[in-house]
Amino acid sequence: MAKSAEQIHLLGMQLDNMSEVATTFVSSWSTRLRKIDNSRIFQSVVIAVILLSALLIGAKTHNLSPKAIAVLSALDFAVTVFFVFEISIRFLATENKKAFFKNGWNIFDTIIVIGSLIPTGGQGVLLARLLRVFRVLRLVSMIPELRLLINALLKAIPRMGYIALLMFVIFYIYAAIGSMLFEHINSVLWGDVSIAMLTLFRVATFEDWTDVMYETMAVYPISWIFYLSFIFLTAFIFLNMMVGTILDVMNEEHNASRAAAHGESEEGGEPASRAQIEKLEQELAEIKALLKQSR
Amino acid sequence: MAKSAEQIHLLGMQLDNMSEVATTFVSSWSTRLRKIDNSRIFQSVVIAVILLSALLIGAKTHNLSPKAIAVLSALDFAVTVFFVFEISIRFLATENKKAFFKNGWNIFDTIIVIGSLIPTGGQGVLLARLLRVFRVLRLVSMIPELRLLINALLKAIPRMGYIALLMFVIFYIYAAIGSMLFEHINSVLWGDVSIAMLTLFRVATFEDWTDVMYETMAVYPISWIFYLSFIFLTAFIFLNMMVGTILDVMNEEHNASRAAAHGESEEGGEPASRAQIEKLEQELAEIKALLKQSR
Amino acid sequence: MAKSAEQIHLLGMQLDNMSEVATTFVSSWSTRLRKIDNSRIFQSVVIAVILLSALLIGAKTHNLSPKAIAVLSALDFAVTVFFVFEISIRFLATENKKAFFKNGWNIFDTIIVIGSLIPTGGQGVLLARLLRVFRVLRLVSMIPELRLLINALLKAIPRMGYIALLMFVIFYIYAAIGSMLFEHINSVLWGDVSIAMLTLFRVATFEDWTDVMYETMAVYPISWIFYLSFIFLTAFIFLNMMVGTILDVMNEEHNASRAAAHGESEEGGEPASRAQIEKLEQELAEIKALLKQSR
Amino acid sequence: MAKSAEQIHLLGMQLDNMSEVATTFVSSWSTRLRKIDNSRIFQSVVIAVILLSALLIGAKTHNLSPKAIAVLSALDFAVTVFFVFEISIRFLATENKKAFFKNGWNIFDTIIVIGSLIPTGGQGVLLARLLRVFRVLRLVSMIPELRLLINALLKAIPRMGYIALLMFVIFYIYAAIGSMLFEHINSVLWGDVSIAMLTLFRVATFEDWTDVMYETMAVYPISWIFYLSFIFLTAFIFLNMMVGTILDVMNEEHNASRAAAHGESEEGGEPASRAQIEKLEQELAEIKALLKQSR
Repeated sequence: MAKSAEQIHLLGMQLDNMSEVATTFVSSWSTRLRKIDNSRIFQSVVIAVILLSALLIGAKTHNLSPKAIAVLSALDFAVTVFFVFEISIRFLATENKKAFFKNGWNIFDTIIVIGSLIPTGGQGVLLARLLRVFRVLRLVSMIPELRLLINALLKAIPRMGYIALLMFVIFYIYAAIGSMLFEHINSVLWGDVSIAMLTLFRVATFEDWTDVMYETMAVYPISWIFYLSFIFLTAFIFLNMMVGTILDVMNEEHNASRAAAHGESEEGGEPASRAQIEKLEQELAEIKALLKQSR
Repeated sequence: MAKSAEQIHLLGMQLDNMSEVATTFVSSWSTRLRKIDNSRIFQSVVIAVILLSALLIGAKTHNLSPKAIAVLSALDFAVTVFFVFEISIRFLATENKKAFFKNGWNIFDTIIVIGSLIPTGGQGVLLARLLRVFRVLRLVSMIPELRLLINALLKAIPRMGYIALLMFVIFYIYAAIGSMLFEHINSVLWGDVSIAMLTLFRVATFEDWTDVMYETMAVYPISWIFYLSFIFLTAFIFLNMMVGTILDVMNEEHNASRAAAHGESEEGGEPASRAQIEKLEQELAEIKALLKQSR
Repeated sequence: MAKSAEQIHLLGMQLDNMSEVATTFVSSWSTRLRKIDNSRIFQSVVIAVILLSALLIGAKTHNLSPKAIAVLSALDFAVTVFFVFEISIRFLATENKKAFFKNGWNIFDTIIVIGSLIPTGGQGVLLARLLRVFRVLRLVSMIPELRLLINALLKAIPRMGYIALLMFVIFYIYAAIGSMLFEHINSVLWGDVSIAMLTLFRVATFEDWTDVMYETMAVYPISWIFYLSFIFLTAFIFLNMMVGTILDVMNEEHNASRAAAHGESEEGGEPASRAQIEKLEQELAEIKALLKQSR
Repeated sequence: MAKSAEQIHLLGMQLDNMSEVATTFVSSWSTRLRKIDNSRIFQSVVIAVILLSALLIGAKTHNLSPKAIAVLSALDFAVTVFFVFEISIRFLATENKKAFFKNGWNIFDTIIVIGSLIPTGGQGVLLARLLRVFRVLRLVSMIPELRLLINALLKAIPRMGYIALLMFVIFYIYAAIGSMLFEHINSVLWGDVSIAMLTLFRVATFEDWTDVMYETMAVYPISWIFYLSFIFLTAFIFLNMMVGTILDVMNEEHNASRAAAHGESEEGGEPASRAQIEKLEQELAEIKALLKQSR
């Protein structure tokens, strides 16, 4: 019995050792993976493979010989395998697995990689090919400067959203009026509210808008007011508001990054105010009075 | 007589009680209305009904079966009733009835609701339908962010007005010159000042403007100067001035809202000036002199 | 003899008196004229007459009955007389006649008024009518806000001039290359450098530029590089530089007018610098040392 | 021997003298050249010759008589000789010959001058003429304000590069999708990825983009989403980002030049901070305490 107890003890120790070894192995492995993942060479390879996948997509849109198609398919398969391998490395290199999916860019990459796993053969050829196109987007998640631009854009969305909503209201009102008044003139352009909104979008981009206007002016000579007021509201005013918002958000982003770069030199914070100086002046006056008394 | 006097007294007291009850009732009712009016749920319902009314307007522009038209008309009636009901609640919930009409947005809403009361049957079908379209605009008065945008726009109007006036002067001069010189070339485009201004607006939006130019260049080869100088003045210079004004006004609005958010931390006001510091230096010099004397 | 001497003396006195009276008369008259010139009513009348003259110009571009033409001519004559009268008042109201012509706006007005004195009858009908068009420009010299805008524009000219020069260099190089390479394809668009520059201006405004491009791509499939690089350089980059310059100048103008409004509160000038504060600190340290010694 | 030694000594002295003379000669010559190079007159002459060469290029694109061509060729030869002469003066006037080629503008000028040395006769006529066109660019290196603009542009390139890359990714994805879905509709517009990108660039400039859209909408009625989302991403958002970047870079450049102009007045650097003032206050409090004790 003592023997078996000892055996159990030994077994426990062995297990301990093994788990220790395993842990060491895993952690060293994880560290190594992280090193690989963060190495400049690996990241350059990933970017190169992304560009290769983009070229493959482009190449497939040309008319190709069966041989070339076979080569492209092989390369495409290799790229797919590489991407699965790369995302796995990235996942395994992360210590906290939950944190991996809290990072929006990781989710973004995972979805794109999973999406491109659909085989290109069979029925869903077009879908599979379309999903492969989005692999080019991985360039954005790989290059920090592009990530910054997208972040700036995402921050601008709430403010731009309200401007877009306002523009939508204006489009809707003009489209409703247009489809009521002009439907009998040209139902291809003003058939219903949705078609009329598309026509108005065309007017807002100044694309052959006078053709649209001259047609309705033949029936309602005063209808130029409809178009001119619409152009003023959308192309001149609200579009500029959107420009202003983007400029503003980019500016803030830029200032934030500059402030971060300056860092400690700005510790002093806000500039001294006049009120502070006035307090100082009062203080000095009191000191002077004290001095005069002490003489 | 004492009895009747007592009766009168009692009557008076009863009336007092009644008016008290009534006042209490009204005020509690008014408070309740205000609560309803300010509740998030009620406001969401209003926005939902506005969107419903927008969809109804859109739906009517499609070709529909008589059954669908009947359903839409019923819904339209319901929306109209709801809007009258909603504006009444808002009016009754306001303690100071005069203040209600001092708020521009209330007047705006009231006019839209009254305008949409015109029955869609009978002769004024089109007018009634058009007026119903503007109910979508109530979205602007319901959503604070959109109200802010419109306020920013209204503030920009005076400054934009002068730029618009200057552009109008330029358009007018070019239109007058154009209609004098080019009328015999193409009277559809240059018939009189008003038509010429419309043609010039087309040129300013770059819409097939070379067709207009090549036509007059066939007669006056030098007339490209007319178009190029016009494009420079309007599209490049004054339009950019308008962009600048909108950006500026939006910026001010944004700064104002940010300043309001920062609030008290900015109490110190303007930064200390060099002149103030120089005063301090003089003061200190005097103190030093005093000290040296006192030794 | 004494009598005649006395007479001469009296005559002298009379002359003195007369000149005095005349001076008084003239100066009082000048003051009165200045009052008229500066009065809001008179300025409103001038603006009204300018608008009337603009309407007359517009009216003449329509087909009119002989009667209407007679009325318009009479009104036109009245406007011309009024303008001569108004500019005379303005000139006489100025004490320092030289200063009158140092003001650019006065010269501007005088030239316009003199230009519109050419009779509309006879050979130079068109010229006379064209010169009358520019009377609308007097609106600019009458309304202070428009004058401010024009001043801002004039200040932007030097900086915009260099950008325009740079754009011209780019246009010229592309036009020279274009006319060398594409002349045999379409000599109407690329015949010589001047025609090619006009074609390139069309491309820069995106007006049917693909028609121009597809034509040359049929011969030189690679010629899209020519158009795309040109569009990038002109429409995207240098045009934006011009936008930036206008925004910048408007901003400075705006800040200047705001600073002028704030006025005295900014007397302190630039904010206090850290270096100044450091000097103060040193001073205080010395005072402290003195105090410690004196104890 | 003493004689020959003396002779050698004399010879040495002579040589010394000679080299001295030579050095003096060269240095005086170099100074004179530098004077010429920096003189306003010489620079004006260079600019005039550049403009002349531009006019020659323009003139050659017109149909000319053999006589005119001979004159132009002679002038062209003179301009070429002048440019070689001018660049030689500039090179010789530079004391440190290495520094000459460290200046980018000198390299730029040298390349342009060497490029235009290719004779216009023989086979490479077109190439020689094309290279001569770039002589107009020397205007940029001669006028300091244009050099500043180009420098500002060069500074903006890294930041604009990333935006351009992001736009390219978006163009590529849309082009790949477009060429997959729409190739069978119109292979001229959507044949392969490269052609599709050109078509999308056309859409981004709003050039007859509705023609492209209506064609695909006939097959896929929902394809307007493709165009509208593309226009939003490119024309509205990323193009504005580019505008923002250019405005930002120009602003920084402008501030830098203004700061350089203010120069010494800004020696103090950053404004005084609140923290500094608080230190001062503490100091004063201590002084006051000292004073009170000393009484």
